[in-house]
Amino acid sequence: MKKHIVLLPGDGIGAEVIQSAKQVLWAIAEEFNHEFTFESRDIGGTAVDTHGTPLPDETVAACQQADAILLGAVGGPKWDSLPSHLRPEKGLLGIRKALNLFANLRPVKGYPKLLHASPLKEEVVKGSDLLIVRELIGGLYFGTPSERRDKGQSVVDTLAYSRQEITQIVDKAFKSAQLRRHHLTSVDKANVLESSKLWREIVEEKKADYPDVKVDHLLVDAAAMKLITNPGQFDVIVTENMFGDILSDEASVLTGSLGMLPSASLREDGVGLYEPVHGSAPDIAGQGIANPLAMILSTALMLRHSFQLEDEAHLIETAVQAVLDDGYHTADLQIPDGQKIGTSHMTALIVELI
Amino acid sequence: MKKHIVLLPGDGIGAEVIQSAKQVLWAIAEEFNHEFTFESRDIGGTAVDTHGTPLPDETVAACQQADAILLGAVGGPKWDSLPSHLRPEKGLLGIRKALNLFANLRPVKGYPKLLHASPLKEEVVKGSDLLIVRELIGGLYFGTPSERRDKGQSVVDTLAYSRQEITQIVDKAFKSAQLRRHHLTSVDKANVLESSKLWREIVEEKKADYPDVKVDHLLVDAAAMKLITNPGQFDVIVTENMFGDILSDEASVLTGSLGMLPSASLREDGVGLYEPVHGSAPDIAGQGIANPLAMILSTALMLRHSFQLEDEAHLIETAVQAVLDDGYHTADLQIPDGQKIGTSHMTALIVELI
Ligand SMILES: CC(C)[C@H](C(=O)O)[C@@H](O)C(=O)O
Ligand SMILES: CC(C)[C@H](C(=O)O)[C@@H](O)C(=O)O
Repeated sequence: MKKHIVLLPGDGIGAEVIQSAKQVLWAIAEEFNHEFTFESRDIGGTAVDTHGTPLPDETVAACQQADAILLGAVGGPKWDSLPSHLRPEKGLLGIRKALNLFANLRPVKGYPKLLHASPLKEEVVKGSDLLIVRELIGGLYFGTPSERRDKGQSVVDTLAYSRQEITQIVDKAFKSAQLRRHHLTSVDKANVLESSKLWREIVEEKKADYPDVKVDHLLVDAAAMKLITNPGQFDVIVTENMFGDILSDEASVLTGSLGMLPSASLREDGVGLYEPVHGSAPDIAGQGIANPLAMILSTALMLRHSFQLEDEAHLIETAVQAVLDDGYHTADLQIPDGQKIGTSHMTALIVELI
Repeated sequence: MKKHIVLLPGDGIGAEVIQSAKQVLWAIAEEFNHEFTFESRDIGGTAVDTHGTPLPDETVAACQQADAILLGAVGGPKWDSLPSHLRPEKGLLGIRKALNLFANLRPVKGYPKLLHASPLKEEVVKGSDLLIVRELIGGLYFGTPSERRDKGQSVVDTLAYSRQEITQIVDKAFKSAQLRRHHLTSVDKANVLESSKLWREIVEEKKADYPDVKVDHLLVDAAAMKLITNPGQFDVIVTENMFGDILSDEASVLTGSLGMLPSASLREDGVGLYEPVHGSAPDIAGQGIANPLAMILSTALMLRHSFQLEDEAHLIETAVQAVLDDGYHTADLQIPDGQKIGTSHMTALIVELI
């Protein structure tokens, strides 16, 4: 298989973890006889410094030609006080929208060796393995009007969805549930919001197309509680952009494995952008100690969702699991009686297993 | 002191816990020589059954004459399939809006005897004591337009705030922080929403008026994480209606004391509506086993915030603490080697201590 991948290292530790991803993909290519070509582009604060904008046109153009995109991380204190159109996050929001990446998939699962670092009691969190499917290019993030009014005396943002947008993400979530434990929880605020009422109606309509999936509806406030009190009850959660932002970050700390969590942002045709959930960690950038595993697991998601290379994806995931089981970890993690290693050593161990 | 209190028992266990509140207030009245008069009105599902609407005009009228209002709980499966204008929650939203109850105060603290029931590890949750100040009558809940469009093909909700509305709640939060540990965390999504940018600007402006309060800003997704990983870092959190709904419910499960949490919804002049955070628990209604402590602690908030009776409020809170320390608890809680008792026995113990 021949695929072209655009790399967007971004800011902070982004460049280091992207380097690890590349090495892992080289190993996969060799082992399975694929050809991956790479091209690097700027995004985020780095792009502000070099191009005067967090999302240069040439970055968008390159991504539009790509079979898939790997993104490191964006942001850092250096750019925090810039006016909002120059903030690194705008690069991220912009590329999602430009490429029509409507579905954000965030799997959260516990690694037995890391569970001790969870803020939750082991009996509460043990066995949790959930996937949040977040709508990514609609809702409150992109609705208009979004502006000051009355000479700055008031302000408005807009939560807008079309039936088509909701249907698209709900379909994606049903399909994801079919590949997992066949249980879908749709999260909304249907007792207050009109948009949530339409959301709930569409989920109810779609049920008929996926008779093998069990469906629950849950209010967003109740979901925020249940993620903590009983995370094991969830399989796939589907929700709108803003709720998804909050709930997926909430879920990301449950298993003590924040440094391990990958994410996928997908377009209907399978092109996707893959990035770790963690941030750019400017405080440790350049020191060679960043944890590359979330980025490496993001490449596994790329192989699976954009290239349908399930065996290759699985091999990477097994390698990550094995390295942890052997007690190797980076500085952000702790494994009792384990061995602390740096970014390139960790990457080499994974490559070796492949 | 002479005060008139409207009681809104509502649905499920509401009537039982309101009865407990009344007994506690009688005891306080006797002990401190106050005169409290009471008047009961319907709200929620009960009001739908008796008046055909979840918020009868006479209920609103009575509340408008009251010095304070105590509400039990609303909702239940019996009314879940009614059209949305007849849903019990509409009564709650309606009374908040009709009385201009702009500030929702939700204290969360741990009780040593109950901490074992927390989903969090003891070392994570120990010592947490925070207050969420939620804007209650603006934002996404009440903004217009909120409607279907394009013949039902799309939908819109509106997040609208005026400078005055934000200023009012931010002021309330600063004042609350002055009465506590002088630390205010303002939660927003200023990297995406216009409304959050104005919110953040106003918090920054207001800082000057409260030089004794330390202020942080936190993005709502990060707040959802930090509430779990380090709840002890928070003192007062202030945020808009929808974020506040999600975060306050998230926070409510942290200490294992959901059945113990009171809330206050306040108007500028001090009139307020006080209610437990827990729901109407229709499954155990009428059995005499409901936990009245959240309702009783809500009366303490009433004495403090609406009547400025700090000693009286404190006495109730001390009594609740003492009863738990003695090992007494209702069926929803567990205390190792404790004694399980019913609603009226629990109420009698509190009354006795007063
Ligand atoms: C950086 C920010 C705009 C972004 C979002 O809110 O979508 C981030 O929090 C995320 O979840 O990917
Ligand atoms: C019942 C519902 C409308 C209400 C809200 O969302 O405000 C409730 O969840 C609350 O937090 O008091």
